[in-house]
Amino acid sequence: MSDRFSDLRGVAEDLGVDAVALVPGPNFTRSIGQAFMSHERPFMLIVPAKGAPAAIVPNLELGSWAQVDFDGAVYDWRDQDGYQPAFDALAADMPLNSIAVEGQVMRVFVHHALKAALPDLNIADGEAAISGLRMIKTPDDVAALEAAIDISERALENVLARVRVGQTESEIESLLIQALFAEGADGMAFNPIVAAGDNSARPHAHARDVAVQAGDALMFDFGAKKHGFCADITRTVFVGHATDEGAEVYDTVLRANRAGHAVTKPGVSAHEIDDAVTAVLEASPYADRIRTKTGHGLGREVHEAPYIMRGNHQVLPAGTVYTNEPGLYALGKFGVRIEDDVLVTEGGSRSLTSFPTEMMIVGAA
Amino acid sequence: MSDRFSDLRGVAEDLGVDAVALVPGPNFTRSIGQAFMSHERPFMLIVPAKGAPAAIVPNLELGSWAQVDFDGAVYDWRDQDGYQPAFDALAADMPLNSIAVEGQVMRVFVHHALKAALPDLNIADGEAAISGLRMIKTPDDVAALEAAIDISERALENVLARVRVGQTESEIESLLIQALFAEGADGMAFNPIVAAGDNSARPHAHARDVAVQAGDALMFDFGAKKHGFCADITRTVFVGHATDEGAEVYDTVLRANRAGHAVTKPGVSAHEIDDAVTAVLEASPYADRIRTKTGHGLGREVHEAPYIMRGNHQVLPAGTVYTNEPGLYALGKFGVRIEDDVLVTEGGSRSLTSFPTEMMIVGAA
Repeated sequence: MSDRFSDLRGVAEDLGVDAVALVPGPNFTRSIGQAFMSHERPFMLIVPAKGAPAAIVPNLELGSWAQVDFDGAVYDWRDQDGYQPAFDALAADMPLNSIAVEGQVMRVFVHHALKAALPDLNIADGEAAISGLRMIKTPDDVAALEAAIDISERALENVLARVRVGQTESEIESLLIQALFAEGADGMAFNPIVAAGDNSARPHAHARDVAVQAGDALMFDFGAKKHGFCADITRTVFVGHATDEGAEVYDTVLRANRAGHAVTKPGVSAHEIDDAVTAVLEASPYADRIRTKTGHGLGREVHEAPYIMRGNHQVLPAGTVYTNEPGLYALGKFGVRIEDDVLVTEGGSRSLTSFPTEMMIVGAA
Repeated sequence: MSDRFSDLRGVAEDLGVDAVALVPGPNFTRSIGQAFMSHERPFMLIVPAKGAPAAIVPNLELGSWAQVDFDGAVYDWRDQDGYQPAFDALAADMPLNSIAVEGQVMRVFVHHALKAALPDLNIADGEAAISGLRMIKTPDDVAALEAAIDISERALENVLARVRVGQTESEIESLLIQALFAEGADGMAFNPIVAAGDNSARPHAHARDVAVQAGDALMFDFGAKKHGFCADITRTVFVGHATDEGAEVYDTVLRANRAGHAVTKPGVSAHEIDDAVTAVLEASPYADRIRTKTGHGLGREVHEAPYIMRGNHQVLPAGTVYTNEPGLYALGKFGVRIEDDVLVTEGGSRSLTSFPTEMMIVGAA
């Protein structure tokens, strides 16, 4: 008999807890086979190490839930009654002592509802183990990532051809977003970063109503979402011309990015990749501009395990996808980041991103 | 001396806790005056009832944080060191016994980090009081909402003129999203719902690759985000023609929507609005198709207090904005929802949405 939740049951056993609880988000979508939203209404799937699963479902989601092949008890609740009775009823039927939850997804109000129903419940953070189930991508997962990346690269190409001095960051961002959807995105992996000049020195910048000027670095960090998977690409171009310093910094970041590709093969650790990449930056005259680790896993979430940083000795098996995104950031001046999405293959690695990484000048008159 | 955090200090006093903790999200943005992202990195503002505030800031956000006018201790942390030392250092300097958090925003991993630093800390869910500070909109807030709504209505008008039998829900959704950004949206309030035929009977439907057919109900539930504020509009149209049942259901929902507008004035309770709206639906032959409450507050978040439902006797003061969105949903057949964004004014109420609510036939050959 097949059991769609066997991997979650395995996590419960490995962590020594009675059950795993998922709330809407990437793990929920993967396990249930369908995406649900999570706003102010608690929605939870409970998979015990042994026995039938259960779910707490907002009444207004029952229509969508009926499409799910789910062989367990459903505790639905209506807005007018509140959600605590559903937690209490589940607790009465399934007297759990310990549970692992997704610490980065579950919010405190659900934690409180669980504790109200089961005051002695031990709630462990099982994020790493639960989300770890998504680390090795299936061929379908890789195909979805490739589709998201292909859409993203076509959108970027389209926008770069249209960048001109005098456009604002916000205007360019709007063009990029429209291009993403015109190319077939289901959504955006995150709100794009379009940042020029000194704004590009902020790793998580927001587009401003500030006009792009000749000589500016112009950073695009963005990605389409397609079939539930996220692209995450950064390219930094120069507008009109690059300063000598800009070109030198760019070359440094590009060499760091290439060093990351070069060491990636099955069995490499996250530490080793970050070390290879960061060593290039550290050996440059711009070591004081390092502000971030090399990258992160990529899949249903734009940031997921494994985190590519020194000290994380987690080994990357074939099928892992991570972002190789070294950057150098001079506060008040400019930043450069180059980000590829890299698949660890049986034979080594393959960059899923294929947009050129050579330094590019755009918007020349 | 002005204190930008005086309202949060007041919440701490009202709730009888030592401090309020905010994490990135709408309350954080409002209090700090700038939006930050929250991924896997804890980022937290602590405002005590008395004394200087403090913040835990990921090191890579320090550049953006420097733009914030913040007169308190900053505990930054680097990826390679992890975040727990920052929580421990803050706890040593600020030995709190009790704290109120945003239960709908803070995630469990931050809760765990707080408890690891302060094992005896009492963490209360202060969501209602904290987010309640955003309930009465300022004139600037209303102007931002109006801008978001204006963009959304122009986008809808644009798309309705282009709907044709044979287009898929996904294609129409893509046109809508492109139109939102072409009209000037900063982002989307949420992933739009574009649902035809039986899919429109699911209150939180996802667009499918299914072609729209003549006679289908076609539901659009969507909104632009502008200057940090969310529009949230639903219109249900019919493609080619409406069936008699469709027209009857539409008329029922429209009368319910109008009943909600009619009772809205300062001092009305959420219960009274829902009761007026739902009574119309209940008196119709379609009472068994009721699946949702009337609506919710609207502002920086697409769903926020007050929740417009029976049993919620919260009174709406002038300046409150809520969604009036009755619907009737026949599973397997079709659904109709009409949603306006309503501002409670000193003299009564004003619909911020002005897109016509009369039944509309689109895509006629």
